[in-house]
Amino acid sequence: MHPTINESLHYAMTSLEVLAVLAFACSGLIAGLRKQLDLVGICMVSGATAFGGGTLRDILLDRRPFFWMENAYWLWIILFLCVIATIFMKRRHVEFTERAIQVPDAIGLGLFSVVGAQMALDLGMPIIVTLLMAVLSAIFGGVLRDMICNEIPKAFSDHQPYAIFAFLGSALLIILQSIGWSEWLSLSLCALLIALLRIVAVYQRWELPRWQG
Amino acid sequence: MHPTINESLHYAMTSLEVLAVLAFACSGLIAGLRKQLDLVGICMVSGATAFGGGTLRDILLDRRPFFWMENAYWLWIILFLCVIATIFMKRRHVEFTERAIQVPDAIGLGLFSVVGAQMALDLGMPIIVTLLMAVLSAIFGGVLRDMICNEIPKAFSDHQPYAIFAFLGSALLIILQSIGWSEWLSLSLCALLIALLRIVAVYQRWELPRWQG
Amino acid sequence: MHPTINESLHYAMTSLEVLAVLAFACSGLIAGLRKQLDLVGICMVSGATAFGGGTLRDILLDRRPFFWMENAYWLWIILFLCVIATIFMKRRHVEFTERAIQVPDAIGLGLFSVVGAQMALDLGMPIIVTLLMAVLSAIFGGVLRDMICNEIPKAFSDHQPYAIFAFLGSALLIILQSIGWSEWLSLSLCALLIALLRIVAVYQRWELPRWQG
Repeated sequence: MHPTINESLHYAMTSLEVLAVLAFACSGLIAGLRKQLDLVGICMVSGATAFGGGTLRDILLDRRPFFWMENAYWLWIILFLCVIATIFMKRRHVEFTERAIQVPDAIGLGLFSVVGAQMALDLGMPIIVTLLMAVLSAIFGGVLRDMICNEIPKAFSDHQPYAIFAFLGSALLIILQSIGWSEWLSLSLCALLIALLRIVAVYQRWELPRWQG
Repeated sequence: MHPTINESLHYAMTSLEVLAVLAFACSGLIAGLRKQLDLVGICMVSGATAFGGGTLRDILLDRRPFFWMENAYWLWIILFLCVIATIFMKRRHVEFTERAIQVPDAIGLGLFSVVGAQMALDLGMPIIVTLLMAVLSAIFGGVLRDMICNEIPKAFSDHQPYAIFAFLGSALLIILQSIGWSEWLSLSLCALLIALLRIVAVYQRWELPRWQG
Repeated sequence: MHPTINESLHYAMTSLEVLAVLAFACSGLIAGLRKQLDLVGICMVSGATAFGGGTLRDILLDRRPFFWMENAYWLWIILFLCVIATIFMKRRHVEFTERAIQVPDAIGLGLFSVVGAQMALDLGMPIIVTLLMAVLSAIFGGVLRDMICNEIPKAFSDHQPYAIFAFLGSALLIILQSIGWSEWLSLSLCALLIALLRIVAVYQRWELPRWQG
């Protein structure tokens, strides 16, 4: 039997999600290596970066179980990834990895923000709370990573547009669904749009306006 | 029809609350500007300062919905405030704003701590938990602000009496209610007392004793 | 009437728990004194170190009430301890106290991690979530202490084995219970083993392998 369109879509979505979680986990892993953390620290920062955003969202929206409790194999994957990286990764691999995860990270930005927005919508949250959940889902993992590593969060300070795309893309999601677009179509389009905007912003070095005060 | 005393009181309370939340939001906004955060960071720190205390209290007491979910227009106000400030605020306005928010900030200290204490009392919490909820409601927003900005929290380190007034005022609240004072009267009196003590402490430059170790 | 074996065991367990919580509270107290925090900060860091791990575990597992809400006298004890220490403790007592709490701290590592693991097991959590709850219960208080004090968490960066014993000991706990050992016996054995390993590691200066990248 051939897979239906819905099954293919679901399959594509799952693959993208795997890529995105791995990209987030790698960004935590690299931050941990750079700060000379030990294996415990590397695992914790990597896991916090991958799942911090979704977990904060679920605590604020009072949703259980958490993604990583229901799909606990993810914790094994991250543990395994961190052990392997600590053993085999060399300093010269770090920069390469950072470049390699830029696209999957942008995919994660798109996916996690629209998923966060959809969950808030399904709970009947007001528009601005929906947008906040989208943004927090996408950025809080990285914020936690930087706070553990004793840095000011990059998402708040590097003047690169990141959260702003989660905000705008989720605003479009709300509009599209309010004019009757289907959930799948609007989610896919908005996630794609957010990811593309982020990729363009990275390669074109777009910057948010600075406070001139 | 003339408003009853109760309606007038309620109206006064709401106005004070608006002032207090704005003062907390401004203190986050200023911290964000000083650290050269981008617009996203400024909004997040401002919101975290305004609502962090109440949100932690509600998570610990297992109360839902959060204030900012039920009154989501507050998030729009803070977003708007931060956008306007980032565009129009100049460096010379920062110090003036900091002085201007000292009194509303003291009002916030008074209001948020007695409200936090009352919520814990209503849930039948032990005395020391009630006092802790009062203190956390009042200070955790600022603590979060400083942690995000990669500073040791001022509420823990500047040796100015702040949380201590929340503690003492809420202890008085518990005593007054246990000897039969009405909720409204004891809440108003204790909030006022805490705010006044804080204002006096700021202008008289009171200091907590230092560890002489 | 003589106490039964069960009563004696329970009594021993409670005494060890008291020791362990005090050791965690002292480690927060010392960190606060070192950073020149004021009395409010010292109490908060001390309390966060003592109860942060259990509280995060309970939030993640959605368990209420928290330990410190049910046993609120503990908050009085920590408040009292911090006031006394701020008044009477001298700089020369700090180092002595740090050495004195190493053994009770190791006991805390053993106790808190197996208790955290047992709670996750009782809720039917997957193995890796159980291990994570064991580790977080034991280390998150100290992580919070270091984050408030604006340091990279020691548990993540000092390359001393600490969390790793919580991980391994709780893995043994899962195995023992799955082959039919009683709860009490497996808990006691694993807690003891973790504590002993930690004590040996401290005195033998064991180190986790470093990233050679």
